[in-house]
Amino acid sequence: MKPNNWSVLKRKVRFGDCDSAGVIHFHNLLKWAHESWEESIDIYGIPCQDIFPNSNSPQNKNIFPIVNCEANFLAPVRLGDLILIKILPKKINNHLFQVNTFFYKDQIKVAEGKIIHCSLEVNSKLKVKLPDQLERWIEASNINTNLKEC
Amino acid sequence: MKPNNWSVLKRKVRFGDCDSAGVIHFHNLLKWAHESWEESIDIYGIPCQDIFPNSNSPQNKNIFPIVNCEANFLAPVRLGDLILIKILPKKINNHLFQVNTFFYKDQIKVAEGKIIHCSLEVNSKLKVKLPDQLERWIEASNINTNLKEC
Amino acid sequence: MKPNNWSVLKRKVRFGDCDSAGVIHFHNLLKWAHESWEESIDIYGIPCQDIFPNSNSPQNKNIFPIVNCEANFLAPVRLGDLILIKILPKKINNHLFQVNTFFYKDQIKVAEGKIIHCSLEVNSKLKVKLPDQLERWIEASNINTNLKEC
Amino acid sequence: MKPNNWSVLKRKVRFGDCDSAGVIHFHNLLKWAHESWEESIDIYGIPCQDIFPNSNSPQNKNIFPIVNCEANFLAPVRLGDLILIKILPKKINNHLFQVNTFFYKDQIKVAEGKIIHCSLEVNSKLKVKLPDQLERWIEASNINTNLKEC
Repeated sequence: MKPNNWSVLKRKVRFGDCDSAGVIHFHNLLKWAHESWEESIDIYGIPCQDIFPNSNSPQNKNIFPIVNCEANFLAPVRLGDLILIKILPKKINNHLFQVNTFFYKDQIKVAEGKIIHCSLEVNSKLKVKLPDQLERWIEASNINTNLKEC
Repeated sequence: MKPNNWSVLKRKVRFGDCDSAGVIHFHNLLKWAHESWEESIDIYGIPCQDIFPNSNSPQNKNIFPIVNCEANFLAPVRLGDLILIKILPKKINNHLFQVNTFFYKDQIKVAEGKIIHCSLEVNSKLKVKLPDQLERWIEASNINTNLKEC
Repeated sequence: MKPNNWSVLKRKVRFGDCDSAGVIHFHNLLKWAHESWEESIDIYGIPCQDIFPNSNSPQNKNIFPIVNCEANFLAPVRLGDLILIKILPKKINNHLFQVNTFFYKDQIKVAEGKIIHCSLEVNSKLKVKLPDQLERWIEASNINTNLKEC
Repeated sequence: MKPNNWSVLKRKVRFGDCDSAGVIHFHNLLKWAHESWEESIDIYGIPCQDIFPNSNSPQNKNIFPIVNCEANFLAPVRLGDLILIKILPKKINNHLFQVNTFFYKDQIKVAEGKIIHCSLEVNSKLKVKLPDQLERWIEASNINTNLKEC
């Protein structure tokens, strides 16, 4: 088993990602952040249909609306740049978790994103604890990161 | 002169704004926030070509890259909702300003956005003071808001 | 009654619409085309919730998936350009209709879009005739256009 | 050398690709088509900075504006679907070429895209012949496809 394949991804900046300033258009970075955590849980083994609303799984019990998002831009991200993306989720409390995403170009951090999700029961819209498989992904991602930093 | 036409806008949520959760896809709110301040300075009388990079005005001396953005989601924003958008810019220091955007549905605040821009000289990339016309728009927007709150 | 307010719209090109070539990013024109027909039926008096899938109207009997779209680009569409948009829908047969969209800058046609929708019953996915209110919008739009051309 | 690695790609449908009908939002398919040909020439060995306008390569002599695009939708493309993408470029004449893109799910064709580009000299905007490296990519892609069909 590769210990870190679900928390380190790669992606190249494409023409349509950029605006007429020649850099990634700002909110596309948050799009990348979201697609990165989708890819991360996918590789880890959680079916995206279990987490995200879709017409194939109307029986999902939980939804995870975003309550806050934020991005910091530290250096220009340009067309053709190959970006390394590190994903580090954190549990905030029983029903809130945040997905931190760090973007690197040539080992320099160029941007970071943060998305906070709330776990709700789909019908009542009441706050409920995170599902077990998300808890496990969060824990495994943190152990994984700590190990690499030892 | 209409005192507030550049700081209060309206917009309806369209099909393509929403994701399969049936609400505005999160980073589209920041797209709305950016388009709102573009529309605001446009109505106020600042040509967008003076502010945003474009092939028609290669002679622009300043650029205003985004260094941070953030959004809070307070209630669902759905297809067909008519949203009132209030824009309130703030000067942070000589070279930084932020554009706050507040989104209302039926007089209830449903979301808010914040975008921080940095003023740079286009060639040297050195920090420079905000251009006068942006300073005036920021001041006028704040006077405008204060007057309405009296 | 204003005879043409639902088939002629205006829109300004914003920073995020453009790519690093300094013109509207190609598929955003089709986004504009779709948002234009949403706005057109809205002004005409058809609630968007009757036509487009959404969590507020799960009782809708018809869906209108897109089976084909096309765009022609005739001249550059740049940041800050004010675009006049003319919408002309056509009925193809009992269950198919197309929405033609023409984009003008300073009375010169700069682009055109075409989107073909199919009318299906939501559960069976069988082809069904267009709903009456869409038929009326299509007819009224064509009468409207013919009158103006006389 | 892998003979076909630049003309057959894979991609998974993400949450933000879909609209509230639960399928890929129509013009995102054309975004995928464009990103696919960017990835294709990248793998083939043509630097994207040679082809697409960007602030790093202001010395590019040619630009390739899109003059037409089209998409056909044959079956629903849903969240989590793994899509196989085949790219087949064609030379139309000395200055025009089209990129055809075919999308497959479980070996069934579910959609197809077509984008036509025109080769122009950047300053004069006069039509010019395709650059040699694009010609070679088009030829190699067609030989490649023919070989596989034998």
